[in-house]
Amino acid sequence: MNRKIRMGMVGGGIGAFIGEVHRIASRIDGQIELVCGAFSSSAEKSKRSGEELYLPSNRIYANFEEMILKEKELPEGERMDFVSIVTPNHVHYAPAKMALENGFHVVCDKPLAYSLEEAKDLERLVKETGLIFALTHNYTGYPMVKQAREMVKSGAFGKIRKVVAEYPQGWLSTFLESTHQKQAAWRTDPKRSGASGCFGDIGSHAENLAEYITGLQITELCADLSILVEGRLLDDDGSVLVRFDNGAKGIIYASQISAGEENELKIRVYGEKGGLEWLQSEPNTLTVKWLDAPKQIYKTGNGYVFSQAAAHARIPAGHPEGYLEAFANIYRNVAKCIQARLKGETPDAIYQDFPTVQDGVRGMLFIEKVVESSNSEQKWVKM
Amino acid sequence: MNRKIRMGMVGGGIGAFIGEVHRIASRIDGQIELVCGAFSSSAEKSKRSGEELYLPSNRIYANFEEMILKEKELPEGERMDFVSIVTPNHVHYAPAKMALENGFHVVCDKPLAYSLEEAKDLERLVKETGLIFALTHNYTGYPMVKQAREMVKSGAFGKIRKVVAEYPQGWLSTFLESTHQKQAAWRTDPKRSGASGCFGDIGSHAENLAEYITGLQITELCADLSILVEGRLLDDDGSVLVRFDNGAKGIIYASQISAGEENELKIRVYGEKGGLEWLQSEPNTLTVKWLDAPKQIYKTGNGYVFSQAAAHARIPAGHPEGYLEAFANIYRNVAKCIQARLKGETPDAIYQDFPTVQDGVRGMLFIEKVVESSNSEQKWVKM
Amino acid sequence: MNRKIRMGMVGGGIGAFIGEVHRIASRIDGQIELVCGAFSSSAEKSKRSGEELYLPSNRIYANFEEMILKEKELPEGERMDFVSIVTPNHVHYAPAKMALENGFHVVCDKPLAYSLEEAKDLERLVKETGLIFALTHNYTGYPMVKQAREMVKSGAFGKIRKVVAEYPQGWLSTFLESTHQKQAAWRTDPKRSGASGCFGDIGSHAENLAEYITGLQITELCADLSILVEGRLLDDDGSVLVRFDNGAKGIIYASQISAGEENELKIRVYGEKGGLEWLQSEPNTLTVKWLDAPKQIYKTGNGYVFSQAAAHARIPAGHPEGYLEAFANIYRNVAKCIQARLKGETPDAIYQDFPTVQDGVRGMLFIEKVVESSNSEQKWVKM
Amino acid sequence: MNRKIRMGMVGGGIGAFIGEVHRIASRIDGQIELVCGAFSSSAEKSKRSGEELYLPSNRIYANFEEMILKEKELPEGERMDFVSIVTPNHVHYAPAKMALENGFHVVCDKPLAYSLEEAKDLERLVKETGLIFALTHNYTGYPMVKQAREMVKSGAFGKIRKVVAEYPQGWLSTFLESTHQKQAAWRTDPKRSGASGCFGDIGSHAENLAEYITGLQITELCADLSILVEGRLLDDDGSVLVRFDNGAKGIIYASQISAGEENELKIRVYGEKGGLEWLQSEPNTLTVKWLDAPKQIYKTGNGYVFSQAAAHARIPAGHPEGYLEAFANIYRNVAKCIQARLKGETPDAIYQDFPTVQDGVRGMLFIEKVVESSNSEQKWVKM
Repeated sequence: MNRKIRMGMVGGGIGAFIGEVHRIASRIDGQIELVCGAFSSSAEKSKRSGEELYLPSNRIYANFEEMILKEKELPEGERMDFVSIVTPNHVHYAPAKMALENGFHVVCDKPLAYSLEEAKDLERLVKETGLIFALTHNYTGYPMVKQAREMVKSGAFGKIRKVVAEYPQGWLSTFLESTHQKQAAWRTDPKRSGASGCFGDIGSHAENLAEYITGLQITELCADLSILVEGRLLDDDGSVLVRFDNGAKGIIYASQISAGEENELKIRVYGEKGGLEWLQSEPNTLTVKWLDAPKQIYKTGNGYVFSQAAAHARIPAGHPEGYLEAFANIYRNVAKCIQARLKGETPDAIYQDFPTVQDGVRGMLFIEKVVESSNSEQKWVKM
Repeated sequence: MNRKIRMGMVGGGIGAFIGEVHRIASRIDGQIELVCGAFSSSAEKSKRSGEELYLPSNRIYANFEEMILKEKELPEGERMDFVSIVTPNHVHYAPAKMALENGFHVVCDKPLAYSLEEAKDLERLVKETGLIFALTHNYTGYPMVKQAREMVKSGAFGKIRKVVAEYPQGWLSTFLESTHQKQAAWRTDPKRSGASGCFGDIGSHAENLAEYITGLQITELCADLSILVEGRLLDDDGSVLVRFDNGAKGIIYASQISAGEENELKIRVYGEKGGLEWLQSEPNTLTVKWLDAPKQIYKTGNGYVFSQAAAHARIPAGHPEGYLEAFANIYRNVAKCIQARLKGETPDAIYQDFPTVQDGVRGMLFIEKVVESSNSEQKWVKM
Repeated sequence: MNRKIRMGMVGGGIGAFIGEVHRIASRIDGQIELVCGAFSSSAEKSKRSGEELYLPSNRIYANFEEMILKEKELPEGERMDFVSIVTPNHVHYAPAKMALENGFHVVCDKPLAYSLEEAKDLERLVKETGLIFALTHNYTGYPMVKQAREMVKSGAFGKIRKVVAEYPQGWLSTFLESTHQKQAAWRTDPKRSGASGCFGDIGSHAENLAEYITGLQITELCADLSILVEGRLLDDDGSVLVRFDNGAKGIIYASQISAGEENELKIRVYGEKGGLEWLQSEPNTLTVKWLDAPKQIYKTGNGYVFSQAAAHARIPAGHPEGYLEAFANIYRNVAKCIQARLKGETPDAIYQDFPTVQDGVRGMLFIEKVVESSNSEQKWVKM
Repeated sequence: MNRKIRMGMVGGGIGAFIGEVHRIASRIDGQIELVCGAFSSSAEKSKRSGEELYLPSNRIYANFEEMILKEKELPEGERMDFVSIVTPNHVHYAPAKMALENGFHVVCDKPLAYSLEEAKDLERLVKETGLIFALTHNYTGYPMVKQAREMVKSGAFGKIRKVVAEYPQGWLSTFLESTHQKQAAWRTDPKRSGASGCFGDIGSHAENLAEYITGLQITELCADLSILVEGRLLDDDGSVLVRFDNGAKGIIYASQISAGEENELKIRVYGEKGGLEWLQSEPNTLTVKWLDAPKQIYKTGNGYVFSQAAAHARIPAGHPEGYLEAFANIYRNVAKCIQARLKGETPDAIYQDFPTVQDGVRGMLFIEKVVESSNSEQKWVKM
């Protein structure tokens, strides 16, 4: 029997940025309903948040431990199916671990954990439990990113030679954490964010996007991380030379002090016969370049895109979809995979396309190696 | 007491384009739940559609008459609060009228009706019943359209002198209706679409956008409608010279045979001191122009936008929102206004910003006058 | 024997805009040398201008009559070959007529003359004398405009259905002529500019571009000219509905009060199978659109362009050429045609591609009909 | 007494790319005349080239030695004033040295020489002779590059923190040199090009642009050069992490195998309060970014630009100037400086703005250090 998939949320109380993004993303396709939550480390704030979300009071919990234990006791037709974890990095591991150990699937915000060690432990647990674990590297959810991946995979560009992935932002150009701005405070705090600030937050998105689209893996890197705002405790800018497993070269750079930039995640990939360019701020466009022919402007929703791209757009060409829809693609796919399990079926290949715990481990490895390289006098660090 | 607002839907069965858009739009902000529907003129198709939407079978109706009558008998805590009408133009009037007569608020797709006469009757009914009636001229839901309107209203550009609104599409470049493609079939059929094809479908969007942003009204027009694809029964292209009530001049044009265009709704407004430009396919950007200073690129979600624009975006700058979010702004606002009524409160001014039955009457008047002008040898037709 | 072609100039004294443009254009390809001039109606200013241009004093004339008569007496190896006329509109006819009557080829700025009557007389004279007469509708000199024309001619887009040509500027948004700004003063003066201000100056460029690219002719039009700045004597804005000889429809609009616009001449052409778009402010790009395939971005200087486009670019792809080079293409072609005559040869077809006196007559006809239509209550005026 | 400045050219025979660019650049402003040349290492080809340029046969020389010696014997009113050197890199040093030693000013194509040693010798000679020496790092000739430099200098952006300069091309994506294509052949040949291919040709442009705009100097770098096309003898791609003397960080990258790119030289500079972006393929636009205000689009030719930018544009806003005009700015400035010398005056500061032999030495140092770093296991190389 078909039914909506039930979500419990950890974090994302009133005023949260990413928590509300996850909730919207979970609603868009009508496959998921929010049934419970532990929205804050403050029980009172959790309660108020749950009420604003129209949850019944008995499904609003004081903390994630209570939520997982109480929900586990509810009957199958009622209890949550999966946990969505939208807390700062240092509070990913504990709820994810407990959810898995108690039989709940997990959707977790990125980066996967506070440390590589935690990440690897989660990978082990997912393997042992066989549960579904999705990481919201949401940028890979865009239809034109799927199109880019399929075009590379098709061999249209020949062997890939060069990859440039960049993610400049400007919002930390001032010493914003000194004003107790919530988003800035935890992201620049080594105790909550992890070993890296800028690369933990957004550099790992660039890395994930590059490997997702090209199907290549970084094997060596040379990094220069910087703290460019005085008083800051973690890197707010960094540039990394990378080498890929097929011999391709590349650059990955991320910045939070590129004043005036919003969220300009961009990737350029060049092969022997052509290349492509995609920019997150105009996400429905994929520019395709050729050696001896005019550039082409691929747009979401057209008949000429690969089926995997088409399956991740909802509306016809010319009706721009955005960040929330890309994010929703992860939730939709997870919901469809859980539905398939409930019915004992194998999910359609379309729906199996979302970032996993392995991507998360790879991201944590990248972050750790970038930090190691940046502190080293040696040119290349193996990854 | 706070609760989600309950929606019943007329039309929008499996495979529909705009019905699914309305549903997604109603979900995004978590303020509305779909509780019932009459999704098709075929009872069997309505049933299948409702099941796919996880509705209980007793809330899936064979037709809108049954839905309205049966829902009316349900207790307040259970029955639908409003009806969403997403059928072709010739089936707007009857369900809207019946819903209003039975005390239900209405959200209706545009254009308001099949004829100006029907439109005026609905206007009368809304006035008599005092119910909420929203028309989904969704493009006015974009944050940067709100910003544009507020900038004009602020006097930043001085008196407005020139307005160019255009809506080129290319999807009807071939005789698509001969293939029984569903969207093309009814839109090119005078019996279902009304007096105009292209201007009924998209020309009226351009007109609505122009009047919404400038706060001006068209007083005279001179139109040239064309059928450029052989065999077609309604206009597929048209250009209109317009004059506004403050003396400004303008052009409104729409086309369905502009091969290679997707949905390039664009507006340019020029005043004495500056002007603006907005393009639907890059909706988070508003280009602002000045006489003696560099152009400025306003982007959604920044601190510098007017509060009315800010209130219609969900996520920070750099995270593109799209067509569905703009559409959702109408549903969110309607839900908030119904909630206020339930509580006996006056809704916040922010939420009272959605297209109404009056906008719908004006749109129908525009369509009729464009057709009249196009058939006339006289240069100017008063509106 | 090969030699540079010798130019005499009428108008274009110190501080002139278009005179200097013509001079630069004549220099770029090294085929032309300026040998004499009557640069101003003030003999003294003419002298100073000529000296600044390093001309010997005996070749700097007090007025065009003197120049034409004196130059005629010089031996062939020394006297000017052609006259370049860069004066305001009301001083085109007299020097052009006298030059032709005395055996000199002519390059004349646009519009061709002050009135249609004058224009037709020049057309007659060119026919009688067999001399070369080029009109600097310079925008047709851009390589990507040539490419556009060739693509239409090739049938790639099928039958043309729709043409939108626009030329918005903002520089006359204020009552600039009241400050005695030189460019504004004569362009807004009926005695010097002619029957139309905006359409004489730039509307005729849009018309010329539309007919050049499509190879079609306008047969009927319906115009609304406006004076939007109080006190002005000639139109500063206008919109025209047009119909072409193959049944295509279109819009031509021009404006000098579109505050914040520089020189945004733009054309869009749509046929049955695709279309194109070209914008003067990014002149090395031609956007090509298709019904069922991605848009293509053609760029100047690539191997894939038509030979006629290739022959009008000087440097490889990626090195932007601009307004001056497009202008220079007219001068280069005229010089090559004169060289061919000197050698008794037929010039290469490449070089015969420049606007002629016939284009000028057509432009004057367009201007007059636009003014007539704008003053009429009748909808359509035949052209 | 005012007169045109006389140029002799070394290299640039029929079919040359950069030689013709230099000639056009020298013509545009009417300040320079080509009076002689040694256009090829083949005397016969030199002769044909000179004839095509309408030079008298006695001023067409068989080689640069002959040209310099013969011209030196001509009287001042007749002989060339400066030598323009447009040969491949390995033939810069000898003619430049001989020209300087014989009292001629020099304009030389970049990079300055084949090796750093040669470059330093030329620097010494310029110092000793006091002659004018200009290097055609032409991209700094664009008006918007001047504007960028002035804005940084004004302190508008605060302290500069980050610089990203890139120059991707795709024309060497195949093993083009194997086809004996002339441009490819010498640029990929270590004997003619020098220690680096891609960085000698275009990486040094990116470096020059970064230092010119920011006024900063690179102090340390870490490079990874690659040969990505099999069989090639010099680097065709490279990425360099750089550190500037004020603590700013940066990336400089150049590529000739970025398939589908033409000449996408681009620079982004970020300071504490804002930043800027300039792209060579749309050179009349400078995007200016601010922390808390909308981006601004500066355009060439407007009243709001700095005077140094205004002085390097010829025509009003909206008339795009391009590569040739930027190049011409160097020639115009050199001509004006020579004219001032002839008159015993100090040239206007505007005209003293062109790349010099010192910039050339710095460029050669950069190339050598990039090659050294790329071959090193050590992370940072001092510059």
